[in-house]
Amino acid sequence: MAAERALVTGGAGFIGSSVVEALGDRGTSVLVVDDLSTGSAANLHHVGGDVEMVKLDIRDAALVQEAFDDFRPDVVFHLAARTDVRASMADPHDDASVNVLGSINVFAAAARVRARRVVNTSTGGAIYSPTAPIPTPETAPVAPLSAYGLSKRVVEEYADWFRSSSGLDVVTLRYGNVYGPRQDPTGDAGVVAIFCERLLTGRRPVVFGDGTQTRDFVYVADVAAANLAVAAIKDPRHRVYNIGTGVEVSILELVRATALAAGVDPRSVPPLPAPARSGEVFRSCLDVRRAAAELELGRPVPLVEGLHRTLEWITAR
Amino acid sequence: MAAERALVTGGAGFIGSSVVEALGDRGTSVLVVDDLSTGSAANLHHVGGDVEMVKLDIRDAALVQEAFDDFRPDVVFHLAARTDVRASMADPHDDASVNVLGSINVFAAAARVRARRVVNTSTGGAIYSPTAPIPTPETAPVAPLSAYGLSKRVVEEYADWFRSSSGLDVVTLRYGNVYGPRQDPTGDAGVVAIFCERLLTGRRPVVFGDGTQTRDFVYVADVAAANLAVAAIKDPRHRVYNIGTGVEVSILELVRATALAAGVDPRSVPPLPAPARSGEVFRSCLDVRRAAAELELGRPVPLVEGLHRTLEWITAR
Ligand SMILES: NC(=O)c1ccc[n+]([C@@H]2O[C@H](COP(=O)([O-])OP(=O)(O)OC[C@H]3O[C@@H](n4cnc5c(N)ncnc54)[C@H](O)[C@@H]3O)[C@@H](O)[C@H]2O)c1
Ligand SMILES: NC(=O)c1ccc[n+]([C@@H]2O[C@H](COP(=O)([O-])OP(=O)(O)OC[C@H]3O[C@@H](n4cnc5c(N)ncnc54)[C@H](O)[C@@H]3O)[C@@H](O)[C@H]2O)c1
Repeated sequence: MAAERALVTGGAGFIGSSVVEALGDRGTSVLVVDDLSTGSAANLHHVGGDVEMVKLDIRDAALVQEAFDDFRPDVVFHLAARTDVRASMADPHDDASVNVLGSINVFAAAARVRARRVVNTSTGGAIYSPTAPIPTPETAPVAPLSAYGLSKRVVEEYADWFRSSSGLDVVTLRYGNVYGPRQDPTGDAGVVAIFCERLLTGRRPVVFGDGTQTRDFVYVADVAAANLAVAAIKDPRHRVYNIGTGVEVSILELVRATALAAGVDPRSVPPLPAPARSGEVFRSCLDVRRAAAELELGRPVPLVEGLHRTLEWITAR
Repeated sequence: MAAERALVTGGAGFIGSSVVEALGDRGTSVLVVDDLSTGSAANLHHVGGDVEMVKLDIRDAALVQEAFDDFRPDVVFHLAARTDVRASMADPHDDASVNVLGSINVFAAAARVRARRVVNTSTGGAIYSPTAPIPTPETAPVAPLSAYGLSKRVVEEYADWFRSSSGLDVVTLRYGNVYGPRQDPTGDAGVVAIFCERLLTGRRPVVFGDGTQTRDFVYVADVAAANLAVAAIKDPRHRVYNIGTGVEVSILELVRATALAAGVDPRSVPPLPAPARSGEVFRSCLDVRRAAAELELGRPVPLVEGLHRTLEWITAR
């Protein structure tokens, strides 16, 4: 993809900035489109290569089209979104205004400039039915609990519609729980970042419910690599790929692993219990065999190693 | 429902005004919420009873909430929508801004005032897979061709989400092709209104494609009655009901029937051929046994009778 031009929506965010970094490393010209609502220009300071940013809200169709017309991307990585699950429950309209309408703008603009491919971003952790098998394959029934999960599902449906109505080549990646450097530890979402931050400042991690709920924790660099891989393959055989590790880890196990990675005795930081939260699934682990078979992916970063790198980043900050 | 209060979004439109009329006839207090973008206050001039209207755009969450807070409806009939299928293909963002985000506002406001039930409006003609059996039951696979059909599908998904997350009692009606008095003959949608208008002004009907495409034509008063029926039953057994006739009629048959109802020799008005249109299904006919079994519905108005009443209305106008 060296000579290509890539537009990354949400490129100033946690995951988007890692996609931009990976693209910059390969010499791809990158335009970041981001309104900096949760992202930050600082997330891109370390990034080398030919990277520019335009600050705009993807809800504004005219501005989105203008950015696409000016930059004429070959490939589009669409990561901009409202990502706060709990906020989506309180205000599903705001969530859908960005996730649904903003995504329609991005797909429409990509179709008009005849982008070669759009890599769309969905969730593997908030989309499947609670009764789906674990680990969960892409073919499992979809039944989002949260308005965030629903809007992400709806974007997949619009992606399919753009594909069939205007031939836009959109492929969707459903991520597990992504963690790593640049995840905001003050937010509500990234449990790894929050645990790391608390441990490094000598506070006990807060665990909602009994801590036996599980997640598929995937390191952010692996997610970025999956984005580049799906953009690079000639003809993706599927429209949707789970991106995770296939390893099911409970929150209590995560607490323990984080303590160990931080060099702290787990018994010295017993979790603080808090009431379980609504809109969240109990078990989540992705069947990632489809991506493993069809995308050129390296070995995923093991959890302990990823936690170690995350702690290093927080410390260095 | 005599003592009840009903809020009707899109109540100044073709179908909405018939719902308002039927409610007014029963002594229900009605608040119409409509931005008059395609509807008209004139559609309500003939309506008796306790009917008021507030002009607002359902995309404005605050105004929607205010109208609901002031009126405190027991039951909500949600018909406001972008209905132009072809416009939705050219501008899916505009379509979704009303159909998806506007509907979220309506559902959220209904949930907050604890409305007893919301009767939501979807499409039976633009939602099912082209490979679904004919007549098509509610359980058939959904695969909308048009952005309009997709946005209507998405609204059904949000209806389910509001049901499970806040207990809102939403039931969706999927209509066939509705026709009758007050349908706009200058628009792009109502083929019956267009044919009637052309016949009465001595012009030949335009038929897109070869005219063998089929539709389930349902008279507007029957649709209004179905709305009231589903609002009245105690515990609907299902979340979705097809509302149609179960009779499959081709466009060429419709041309013939309209000519006969207008007292014109069909051979004197041969159809003008035009290219087939994209985003439209080829065959459409609804399996209406679920509604027939569970809702208290009268005998549907036969097509010839409905066409006759429609022609009378156009002539009297
Ligand atoms: N973090 C996870 O575990 C996870 C899991 C599954 C999917 N995802 C998805 O990955 C993507 C990136 O998420 P993240 O975790 O990096 O979160 P993030 O908040 O760091 O990134 C989102 C980015 O989008 C930008 N953005 C938000 N609204 C915008 C708008 N209206 N216009 C332009 N830019 C806007 C933000 O400023 C931010 O830079 C999102 O689509 C998210 O739903 C994340
Ligand atoms: N006509 C059909 O054959 C048919 C078939 C299936 C479903 N439907 C559905 O039935 C409903 C009524 O359709 P109709 O045929 O009477 O069309 P219509 O255009 O006459 O009615 C729609 C009404 O909604 C109002 N409206 C539109 N956007 C609005 C907004 N943003 N805020 C407030 N009001 C707004 C319009 O002014 C109009 O009065 C729609 O939901 C439509 O999708 C119609």
